Amino acid sequence: MPKLLILSDRAEQYENLIQAAKLPNLEIFAFKNADVKAKIANQCEIVLGYPSLIRDLLPSLAKLRWVQTLSAGVELLLLPSLRRDYVLTNARGVFGELMAEYVFGYLLFHERQIFKHHQLQAKKSWDGSDTGSLRDKTIGLLGVGSIGAHVAKTAKHFGMIVHGYTRSSQSSPDVDVYHHDDLIEFACGVDYLVNIFPNTPETQKLLDASVFDALPKTAIFINVGRGSAVDDEALQAALEQEKIAGAVLDVFDKEPLPKEHPFWTTPNLWITFHTAAPSLPKDISQVFIENYHRYIKDEALNYQVDFERGY
Amino acid sequence: MPKLLILSDRAEQYENLIQAAKLPNLEIFAFKNADVKAKIANQCEIVLGYPSLIRDLLPSLAKLRWVQTLSAGVELLLLPSLRRDYVLTNARGVFGELMAEYVFGYLLFHERQIFKHHQLQAKKSWDGSDTGSLRDKTIGLLGVGSIGAHVAKTAKHFGMIVHGYTRSSQSSPDVDVYHHDDLIEFACGVDYLVNIFPNTPETQKLLDASVFDALPKTAIFINVGRGSAVDDEALQAALEQEKIAGAVLDVFDKEPLPKEHPFWTTPNLWITFHTAAPSLPKDISQVFIENYHRYIKDEALNYQVDFERGY
Repeated sequence: MPKLLILSDRAEQYENLIQAAKLPNLEIFAFKNADVKAKIANQCEIVLGYPSLIRDLLPSLAKLRWVQTLSAGVELLLLPSLRRDYVLTNARGVFGELMAEYVFGYLLFHERQIFKHHQLQAKKSWDGSDTGSLRDKTIGLLGVGSIGAHVAKTAKHFGMIVHGYTRSSQSSPDVDVYHHDDLIEFACGVDYLVNIFPNTPETQKLLDASVFDALPKTAIFINVGRGSAVDDEALQAALEQEKIAGAVLDVFDKEPLPKEHPFWTTPNLWITFHTAAPSLPKDISQVFIENYHRYIKDEALNYQVDFERGY
Repeated sequence: MPKLLILSDRAEQYENLIQAAKLPNLEIFAFKNADVKAKIANQCEIVLGYPSLIRDLLPSLAKLRWVQTLSAGVELLLLPSLRRDYVLTNARGVFGELMAEYVFGYLLFHERQIFKHHQLQAKKSWDGSDTGSLRDKTIGLLGVGSIGAHVAKTAKHFGMIVHGYTRSSQSSPDVDVYHHDDLIEFACGVDYLVNIFPNTPETQKLLDASVFDALPKTAIFINVGRGSAVDDEALQAALEQEKIAGAVLDVFDKEPLPKEHPFWTTPNLWITFHTAAPSLPKDISQVFIENYHRYIKDEALNYQVDFERGY
């Protein structure tokens, strides 16, 4: 009978959802943190949890065969010092809708000048000038996996032109133009630049001064991928010098963002707290349940991470 | 040769766009306001313009056969004291995209707590709590014409349940449930109530205390139809007493909204300035051009307004 270890602050919710699916032959141990006794850890062959909690337990998981993460990002499990003798699957296919809501919430917030209208209201100042519109604007997606494809679909719904920058997949029917290498050329042609890349060696500080210089002055940069992709000082300078019109950041190199970080007060920068696409137990438990059915039939699991490639 | 009178603050833009279409046999007179000499007005059989400018000229338009308005709303031309011996067509089919941008800009602004995040940022306070999501929420549309259908389509894109309240058309494939008479029952079941009704005798103060009482306490009311549909005092009371969670108003009984009106400072009320879906010359001129081709072939014009019904 396979034993599953759940590691999440919402361990109980996950346990209930998985119990309800009546998976064959599964015994479950659920914990809110990594404070798990060795005699339990060393029996479990499957772990469902957050990379931050799993990492510390890796040495004690004597029978480990499969880790399903609750997040899309798995970089904490990819450090070269850590074992790789198990199958690692991440959560995929469940964040697209939420990410699209976040991205388009901020795109429309910007185009329709919601904050400016709020300020005009406070001054009792009626101003009937036209706002902008998303139609015919260009969105550039850095990364066109399942999240990128969903953002692209929403962009097409609003009549936008979609450019995708990718080294691998280019299967989304909603991307009008694919770019593969020249990031500067890519940046020149977009009104909105959205980073969705995972944290890999190739994406470290990919968004640097040269990219922010290349963007149109009216452009908005949105980061829902990973903070490591951004050169923070270059972004801060671009916003202070009005080289771009604004930025929206959900992710940061260090989270929570330290109090002393200049991003808290950088002009035209809107920050959120890694909340763009939360891992919702009802979504993620489905990913696990489907994968467990494959696991017991010895089929290839969905959403396997390549330890070398990093995603 | 038919003579066209254009009445708009963007008269020149409309003239250029229509000239560019090289319409057969059309002579154009373009004015920024209603200050048109009688000897010009009394030759023109077609008028393209805003109802507010056309109304005052109606008595001098001796040869009038057709009025195409630049707006969807035509109530100023429907007063019983005014002539009705011409064909009145309004602008339709061009506002749906812009209205959907506006409505979903504010829906996402609310669900994703953009303003709250802005306030947290100002306090340098990291708060990783989950925000809401549009998925599985219910939107109730008062009016399901071409604008309502577009809003419904966007709602389905975001995974919402769509209820439509209508006395006439019910042809949108994106409406899940239609209601026809019980407005209170309709209001009970929605998270977002969006008024898109035109200004007609039937819609006067339709949204009164009984409707705001029926809405869930978490509901948001959005008015992109006409201000006359709302009992202002009842809405103000509903917001002050937190009977609903918020309101977004683009239209008002009197516009510009008078400085002394309580809506400027009512809690949880977000106002804009009749800017949700501006009449863009490139869109509206297409409506006119297509209709002109019908006109000279003596075909029925698109988007005819029924003077009795009011839309």
